[in-house]
Formats: sequence, structure tokens, C-alpha cells
Amino acid sequence: MKAIVFDAYGTLFDVTSVAEVCDKQFPGYGQQISEMWRQKQLEYTWLRALMRRYEDFAAVNRGALQYALHQLNLWYDNEMLNTVLASYLTLPTFPDVPQALHALRTHRLAILSNGTQGMLEALVRNAGLLWNFDHVLSVDPLKTYKPDPRVYQLAVNALGVAKERILFISSNGWDVAGAKSFGFTVGWLNRRGKVAEELGIRPDYEVANLLELIERAFR
Amino acid sequence: MKAIVFDAYGTLFDVTSVAEVCDKQFPGYGQQISEMWRQKQLEYTWLRALMRRYEDFAAVNRGALQYALHQLNLWYDNEMLNTVLASYLTLPTFPDVPQALHALRTHRLAILSNGTQGMLEALVRNAGLLWNFDHVLSVDPLKTYKPDPRVYQLAVNALGVAKERILFISSNGWDVAGAKSFGFTVGWLNRRGKVAEELGIRPDYEVANLLELIERAFR
Repeated sequence: MKAIVFDAYGTLFDVTSVAEVCDKQFPGYGQQISEMWRQKQLEYTWLRALMRRYEDFAAVNRGALQYALHQLNLWYDNEMLNTVLASYLTLPTFPDVPQALHALRTHRLAILSNGTQGMLEALVRNAGLLWNFDHVLSVDPLKTYKPDPRVYQLAVNALGVAKERILFISSNGWDVAGAKSFGFTVGWLNRRGKVAEELGIRPDYEVANLLELIERAFR
Repeated sequence: MKAIVFDAYGTLFDVTSVAEVCDKQFPGYGQQISEMWRQKQLEYTWLRALMRRYEDFAAVNRGALQYALHQLNLWYDNEMLNTVLASYLTLPTFPDVPQALHALRTHRLAILSNGTQGMLEALVRNAGLLWNFDHVLSVDPLKTYKPDPRVYQLAVNALGVAKERILFISSNGWDVAGAKSFGFTVGWLNRRGKVAEELGIRPDYEVANLLELIERAFR
């Protein structure tokens, strides 16, 4: 492996943590909002890419949150919306992330994500990890979303490495399928023991955490 | 309006009816299987279209059902799978459909659906509606899925009518967004009082059933 590319949301950064800030603004509904919001956020990226009506991830994320609040029939104003949305800039990393990045420090590392450049850099900086990565790559210049194969090509172009020499790591089954379909070597970080997606393609590695993946792919 | 184009699954035909056949094969799990299956079925059409790994709707539908069964940790064999999948060829129409099609009989009518040609023709024939439609159009020759704008263009090509003179009717909010984004005049058949999708686009009509739509669009 010549380089390692990480997905951000759900892979390095725990998106389920937003349930807490949701619950402060909408007591008793934090968990439900968080789940519906994440599901709609993903749906909207796929639908907008397919419809060719790209809006950046900040806008998509806002729309998805609004949908969840409407669905639950919850009243909100702009300030409440902005408070909840700001949580995406300070998501905590999963506990295995700092040690794993340290273990991989001699490799070329990148992030490839649906987020905007601004969102991603704020997120990585707030986590104190900006100097760990050679590249933080956003889909935004392409105006499409994962799993469009053009997104994965961004990492190949930035790193200048053949795609099968790139280890792509994601916790999201659909992202794993997209990355493997593109031609990366792929590790599925199945942190929560989910069942595999039935998309006719399997990752090269399936592990429960990053340290297990390092053990299997690099030793 | 020069022609009317209907979505099939969830719009003319009630996909939630499969809960019953699921429940016969997997007692106590019918409702849950039905909901997870439908959700995954849609996700897989979007993901496969974006990944450019098209498989026809029969294959996608099978994969989505398998995912739902794995997720619920239910044992199955091929015969059980085939029995459940066969229900997609005999879905009942919603109660307003026969009367609405009769009222619209002097117009040119078509179906435009993600289903394969074979699945759609069997479905429409089993419902006794084959002679009501001028065209039954499948995405299959294009090897992509809704809401890719090329799918909606299929209906324009088949009908030879300008797209804004075509009334497109769907119960699925994301299909409504895709059709309106493409340029059809669009009626959202919001049978179950769902909240609107936040995709930055609204239908021309929102109604609770087909007869209300006919009343508003044609009188």
C-alpha cells in the first residue's frame, strides 16, 4: 500500500454524537432526530447527484435536518437549526483514531469526503489532526457525491498513486461498495457489526476497528 | 395536458401489501421486512445508478430483500425468497385507480417505472389494466434508475409530446422532485400525508388521491 485514504463522517468522526446536541435543543428527540437526519442526509446526496441538482453538503445537511424536524412535527427557528448544524464542525473522533494515525504516520494519508472543504478543514483542525493528513479532499469541486466513481478518482489524482495501491477505509457499507467498484483496495471498518450491503461486491478487509485493520493489512 | 405518465410502485400499485406475504413466510416480521425491503430497494437503485453498476430491478429487489432478512437475522431458502419476490407481480392497485383511469381514458396514458419490462407487463396484466395504457416504459434499456433525468426523457421520446405538456404522477417524493427537476408538470399523490422532501423543488399539485388530482388538473 502506497497511501491510505479515509472517509470522514462515520469513519474517523462519530456522527451519532450529534444526538446529544439535538437532545438539548429538542428534549427527548435527540436520538430520533440524529438517525432520521443522517439517513436523509445520505439520501439527498445520492438523489442530488443522480438528478444533477448539486448543492454543497452544508446545504444538503441543513435540508436533511429540516426534513427530520418536520417529520417529527417539531417547531424550530434558524438559531436552533444553526446550533445543531454547527455540531458537524466539532464531531469527536472514534477512540481508536489517534493511535491508528500515529501508527500510520510514515504513510501518505488523506481524507476523501462529501463535506465541503471548509467543513472538513474545520472538523479536522478542531480535532487537532490537520497535520496528520497530506490531503483533505472534498467532492465540492466536482459537484457530485459518493459513490460516483469520479469522486474516488480525486484521491488518485491528488496522490499520484495507482488505485489498487491505495487502501480506502470507510465504515459506510455503500461507500465501501463504491470504492471497491472503483478499484481501490478497501477496508470496511464495521464498528457496529452491521450486515453487509447486497450490492454484489465485497471489501478486501472487514474489521471492527482501525488497529485490527493495521494489524491485518500492514503486518 | 397532452399525456399523463404514472409511476408504478407505490403510486398505482400498493407495495406495502407485500407485508402480508412476508408475514406468511416469516411470521411476526411481515411489517418490518416490508419496510426495510422497500427502503433498501430504493437505496440500491440510487447507489447502483451512481456507481454505474446497473443490475435490473429484479436483481436489485432480490438483494434488498436479502439484506432485510439478514438484518433481522431470519433464516431463508431460495423457495421462500422466490415466493416473497413473486408478490411484486401481483401487487393490488390502490382503490382510486380503476375509476381514475376510466375518467382519463380519452388521454394518452403511460407508465414509467424502475421495474423491468417483464415485471411491469406482468403486474399491469395481472391487474387487468394492460389495455388502459398506451405505453409501459421500463428504465431497463437505459441501464440506470430514477431520478436520472435520462429516465424521464424516455417518456418524452415515447409520447412525442413536450415535457411541460406531460403530467407526471408519483406518490414518491424523491420521484416527484426528479420529475419536476427534469421539466414535467408534476402531481404529488401524497396518499399518506408525508412531509415534503427538502430537495429545493416543489410539485405543481399535491393531492391525497387520483380523483382529487383529476378534479384540480382537468376541470
